[in-house]
Amino acid sequence: MTALASWRDTPTRAAIVEFVEAVSGDGPRHVPVERRVAVLDNDGTLWTEKPMPVELGFILQRLAAMADQDPTLRDQQPWKAAHEGDHAWLGKVVTDHYQGDDSGVKVLIGGLLKAFDGMPVEEYVDRATVFLDHARHPSLDRDYRDCGFLPMVELLGYLADHDFTCYIASAGDRDFMRVISNPMYGIPPERVIGSSNALRYEEDDHGGAVVYESRPDFFDDGPVKPVRIWSRTGQRPILSVGNANGDLPMLRFTGGRDLPALRMLVRHDDADREFAYTAGSEQALDEAAKRGWPVISVRDDWSTVFAETP
Amino acid sequence: MTALASWRDTPTRAAIVEFVEAVSGDGPRHVPVERRVAVLDNDGTLWTEKPMPVELGFILQRLAAMADQDPTLRDQQPWKAAHEGDHAWLGKVVTDHYQGDDSGVKVLIGGLLKAFDGMPVEEYVDRATVFLDHARHPSLDRDYRDCGFLPMVELLGYLADHDFTCYIASAGDRDFMRVISNPMYGIPPERVIGSSNALRYEEDDHGGAVVYESRPDFFDDGPVKPVRIWSRTGQRPILSVGNANGDLPMLRFTGGRDLPALRMLVRHDDADREFAYTAGSEQALDEAAKRGWPVISVRDDWSTVFAETP
Repeated sequence: MTALASWRDTPTRAAIVEFVEAVSGDGPRHVPVERRVAVLDNDGTLWTEKPMPVELGFILQRLAAMADQDPTLRDQQPWKAAHEGDHAWLGKVVTDHYQGDDSGVKVLIGGLLKAFDGMPVEEYVDRATVFLDHARHPSLDRDYRDCGFLPMVELLGYLADHDFTCYIASAGDRDFMRVISNPMYGIPPERVIGSSNALRYEEDDHGGAVVYESRPDFFDDGPVKPVRIWSRTGQRPILSVGNANGDLPMLRFTGGRDLPALRMLVRHDDADREFAYTAGSEQALDEAAKRGWPVISVRDDWSTVFAETP
Repeated sequence: MTALASWRDTPTRAAIVEFVEAVSGDGPRHVPVERRVAVLDNDGTLWTEKPMPVELGFILQRLAAMADQDPTLRDQQPWKAAHEGDHAWLGKVVTDHYQGDDSGVKVLIGGLLKAFDGMPVEEYVDRATVFLDHARHPSLDRDYRDCGFLPMVELLGYLADHDFTCYIASAGDRDFMRVISNPMYGIPPERVIGSSNALRYEEDDHGGAVVYESRPDFFDDGPVKPVRIWSRTGQRPILSVGNANGDLPMLRFTGGRDLPALRMLVRHDDADREFAYTAGSEQALDEAAKRGWPVISVRDDWSTVFAETP
């Protein structure tokens, strides 16, 4: 298969090829293999994030199951909305968030932190696997596992072929993303950087277990992204792709004083094939325009958005 | 070169070969490649930790440099000891620690947290590299970079040849170990798990910097080790090697309910070629004896301890 086959012959594609050939060639912009580190956001960058992040569906399913078991939870949010399948409440949380009111987000996070309290990480992975094996996108007529952007999967392959080491660097839950990162993107679990609740080790007679606590460890967004990327890789990346304001520090951090850099944003401008929205990406798109970072237009740069499903 | 050439033909070596062949063969104990994860402690497991961890020399050098610049620091510990080259104070800190008195350790850590406050991670790496390019062991007649245990380097190579992914999992400073992990052990920076101070991202016009704060992020020892191993790898290891009590939870965590496991301890019992000590390893050695975990005797299992130096 031709590299980047689902990319149209546009300046964006040309910028990618020019950069990757320059850093992997013998010329003045050569970067040694061990420093060819790429970081890519997940929700909205590698797969679709509308109408809501996939992970939220998993959490809501869990909250609903908790409310099924414990009727006292049914009167309080977010269990109430999960139990009643009340998408309007969730929609309002998101709308309020974009208008600067995070009171709903706090209620949601409060539930989220309790949803997996005390659960061993391996049980969480098993449950997330079952969820992802069955979850279907509400409008795209495909399973969530088939909602990855084919051109981005091709980009990951193209980078790997040029000896890049690619990481996911996302605000999404790390252990949730680990379930799909290898089958969907060829990225193994140790190269998934994301948010997590705090963990503790509990001893037992069978090797013990690492279990979630009901408090956050970190939320991997905004200025936390460069910190988490360093912590996990010990490297400054030379290529990064995001789609939202929270990706800006990661994009700025890329390259630094000494290394060549390619920073890109995905712009969702294709209501026919995916979604069209800019909410949450305004600053990022402004800065990309100002600095001349390539913007990947779903409508213009991609000949195909999703792989054909079996 | 024959695999494990510096290992004598002992039951310990036989246990390693038997396990590695079983999990990488087609028999009932086969483990798929992606689950062949090994974790190894560093100080006292991959290289010598006596008379003191190498990293401590680096911190003391930095504290002494701070006291050179700021005379007011010369009256307070640990700057006073660093400035005066007072090894007796440090020796007492260690002795007190083993006797359950950590007041000195706290003073030392207080200095350590201030030693790199506000320093960009890349500057720290540069300084650690310079230190490690010149640091020489006080009694072994070799540079610190030549203080790796040759049989353990061979073990890492043997595991890699059988498609294991090997990580360092150590209480040592993560970013310090990253400087030597690849040249000494063939372990890249993204596979070094260790302790770290907290980090923050600071913007500037050149890609910004990730800098250290003067507070700990985590100290990667005891029950924190399984947590950090999961966070970094998303896997439960099947092989682990340590040498001290702080490695016990990591060893217990290895394998778990479902996977074959090999857990080993290095026993320092060779005063002629390295050092002989058990302080800090008593519980670990007891548990190894109780559970039948192989104990690697420096004296009996290794025909050579260190590689010949150029």
